[in-house]
Amino acid sequence: MLVPTLTAVVYAEWQTLGGIIASMGACFLVGAFFLMGKVKNDAVYAKEGMVIVASSWVALSLFGALPFFLTREIPSYIDALFEAVSGFTTTGATIFTGEGTADGYLALPKSLLMWRSFTHWVGGMGVLVFIMAFLPLSGARNMHIMKAESPGPIVGKLVPKVRTTAKILYAIYFVLTVLEFLFLLVGKMPVFDALNTAFATAGTGGFSIKTDGFAGYSPYLQWVVIVFMLLFSINFNSYFLILCKKVKDAFNLEVRVFLGIVLTAIVIITINVYTTACELYSYTVGEAVRHTAFSVASVISTTGFATENFDLWPAFSKTVLVMIMFVGACAGSTGGGIKVSRIVVLYKGATHEMKRVLHPKQVKKISMDGHIVENEVVRNTNAYLVAFIMLFVVSLLLVSLDPAVAAVSNNAIVTNFTAVAATINNIGPGLDAVGPVGSFAFYSPLSKLVLIFDMLAGRLELFPMLVLLAPSTWRK
Amino acid sequence: MLVPTLTAVVYAEWQTLGGIIASMGACFLVGAFFLMGKVKNDAVYAKEGMVIVASSWVALSLFGALPFFLTREIPSYIDALFEAVSGFTTTGATIFTGEGTADGYLALPKSLLMWRSFTHWVGGMGVLVFIMAFLPLSGARNMHIMKAESPGPIVGKLVPKVRTTAKILYAIYFVLTVLEFLFLLVGKMPVFDALNTAFATAGTGGFSIKTDGFAGYSPYLQWVVIVFMLLFSINFNSYFLILCKKVKDAFNLEVRVFLGIVLTAIVIITINVYTTACELYSYTVGEAVRHTAFSVASVISTTGFATENFDLWPAFSKTVLVMIMFVGACAGSTGGGIKVSRIVVLYKGATHEMKRVLHPKQVKKISMDGHIVENEVVRNTNAYLVAFIMLFVVSLLLVSLDPAVAAVSNNAIVTNFTAVAATINNIGPGLDAVGPVGSFAFYSPLSKLVLIFDMLAGRLELFPMLVLLAPSTWRK
Repeated sequence: MLVPTLTAVVYAEWQTLGGIIASMGACFLVGAFFLMGKVKNDAVYAKEGMVIVASSWVALSLFGALPFFLTREIPSYIDALFEAVSGFTTTGATIFTGEGTADGYLALPKSLLMWRSFTHWVGGMGVLVFIMAFLPLSGARNMHIMKAESPGPIVGKLVPKVRTTAKILYAIYFVLTVLEFLFLLVGKMPVFDALNTAFATAGTGGFSIKTDGFAGYSPYLQWVVIVFMLLFSINFNSYFLILCKKVKDAFNLEVRVFLGIVLTAIVIITINVYTTACELYSYTVGEAVRHTAFSVASVISTTGFATENFDLWPAFSKTVLVMIMFVGACAGSTGGGIKVSRIVVLYKGATHEMKRVLHPKQVKKISMDGHIVENEVVRNTNAYLVAFIMLFVVSLLLVSLDPAVAAVSNNAIVTNFTAVAATINNIGPGLDAVGPVGSFAFYSPLSKLVLIFDMLAGRLELFPMLVLLAPSTWRK
Repeated sequence: MLVPTLTAVVYAEWQTLGGIIASMGACFLVGAFFLMGKVKNDAVYAKEGMVIVASSWVALSLFGALPFFLTREIPSYIDALFEAVSGFTTTGATIFTGEGTADGYLALPKSLLMWRSFTHWVGGMGVLVFIMAFLPLSGARNMHIMKAESPGPIVGKLVPKVRTTAKILYAIYFVLTVLEFLFLLVGKMPVFDALNTAFATAGTGGFSIKTDGFAGYSPYLQWVVIVFMLLFSINFNSYFLILCKKVKDAFNLEVRVFLGIVLTAIVIITINVYTTACELYSYTVGEAVRHTAFSVASVISTTGFATENFDLWPAFSKTVLVMIMFVGACAGSTGGGIKVSRIVVLYKGATHEMKRVLHPKQVKKISMDGHIVENEVVRNTNAYLVAFIMLFVVSLLLVSLDPAVAAVSNNAIVTNFTAVAATINNIGPGLDAVGPVGSFAFYSPLSKLVLIFDMLAGRLELFPMLVLLAPSTWRK
């Protein structure tokens, strides 16, 4: 919370400063209290790794909500928690309804805008991976924590030591963020805006500091953000491989499939949007390409920025966008969603199984980039898919109970479906009432709690949050 | 086609009779032509079984469309094919827009109404299983064909001989159909209506012969259909077990889960519908229970009859209905959908995998009803889920390209999503423009072909149709 504190000082927001310092105090007190306890058994296996990560993220969210709540900028604590979870999980779904100041900023103190963006940056790479990079902990323990916090079906170490791996990842993250910041400054974006945008893009978060999202910035700035949204969606291992001059290895199957999906989606949506111009929108070819590229990059990277209200686009374009919401980014990036590598593993697993049924005697192993994909990974990925669908279904049912939706939405089913999709995949905006110009404010506290759980479950790739809830975890 | 021929004679529909006899002639000629060829290699393995079943169903559909087309009652062959495929696959999605005669019947000759209903009955239990029951074929060959045509992840034989199994299944099917017919007659339903209804319920089809679906019939008749829709959704093995006095075995896990879902859905939708009465609908408690039970039984059995336009119900009820569309009936019944036993296997597989991650040393096998579920079944079911999702996504994309939807639908995304869901799960009606009072007529020929493929793929449980399309199948 030093970042918003500093911002409050710079912008002389003394009233807000009090709330932020009170939040820091609360963290300090509770932290000190827990430090007094003694750890009896510090063995960390898979289960402990998951519980540590899940409960840390819950604690992070509970305290991360305090600056919004104690400054009284968000009067309801559930709303403040929603905003904080949305920040840390890099979702970017907001409860602010778009009321702005005269110069187009969201009607919030600058320090809190900065806190929102900064939570994205902290949550993007993983808080515990960050701690690991700097605290001396044993290697085996680290690996289980890193596995539970890092996105993707297979978590590899770049170098033999987990701690060094964590440091390299954070170095890449930091350098890319600075690069984007500089590119934005070159396009004459104000420093405050550039800092916020760089944080939010790096974490593939999506909180916007302006009421019109990204529509007001120049095409150059929009293209910079498009490129960086995509860069932050690619497995960070690839950057490490490029640094090691293994360029061919860097463009592995997952990266190629990811770029293939991005290009295909941009081409077909551009054609669809351009050829069906109507009174609601009408673009030149250049605008159509730019708005489409921005929307596709924003959705597949699970960032959630918007230059245009894609809820007005034709059904085909919206359908494609909803589909790539579920695909998500590459494993080992800061993006959310199911992850491209999982889709590839699921596809390969299914076709392999079909071949096995047809030719029972020719059992080959599944391989990817020349490596054999272990059965365990396929099994685990299938279990992930089933858990994902079940969580999705239960969440959708609970949110559908909310009578508040009918009042704000033309089609409650689309609103609820995309609200769950946008939170579980950590994207931010959905369609209809939760579309790019909408907000999650209208949902009841119960629905918000469900969506909060979905955001956390989505960010931590389901299993840690499910293990945290399982009664067997808490039995002696 | 003897059944519609007979109907045409009874109702003196001489003009229609010509078209039906011409259709029979076409079948005869093409059949005779193929009979002249000689089979060089009659070995049937898994692949051959799938190809035989898939191509038989395609042929069945192509010829089954002729009575509609040659009588000129459906001028477009694609539309006639859609109606025939919808009939045989027991989907019940129709291209008729509900124009009726003065006495409330659909504006079609009685003989063709009968043909529509009869295709449901033929398709419900499986055409090839029927042929098997009466033609002498070797056992091993039969098993592969039966596996490819029967619904569910595990196809068991009731008795050692496949042929006897097929005969027992058809006997149960026949007796249940007759029973429903008699119960309907007791409720004073006209003989023609009762015959059509019994055929359509037995196959869990859903073609209605009245323009107002089932709304016009008495509550007693509606309850009879509710009960029989559910009876035809239960694994026929259970009836065999009951006949063998193994009542406890008959109520296996799948049946219990199925009945649990049905009851839960009826209770929560009844509460939701009853407590949110509005100007569009308003029921007494009894009506609410009846309409809800009818809709739930109709959707989960994948029949598709309707007493009420559930598209007008609140979002929560519609969401529950869409969800149970995907669940579907029990394996080994005439119903469609993913099947309850698959859902159970997927759930058990996923929780088992999570336990394995947490306690790697305690690897137990998955069991169901006291039997071990082989890894092969779990793998196969996961592959099914992935194939299902991929087919769903591709179909939705192709159908979304159709500009015709925007003209008839308030929300094209809901229409397209539920159109694909209703065809791939062999239900019939979806929501919005393809809701209980809608029709599939407006879709373009391309969309109809996609939905035709989905209906066939759904009925044959995906793999046979996918194998039919795979280039490797046709390589020498």
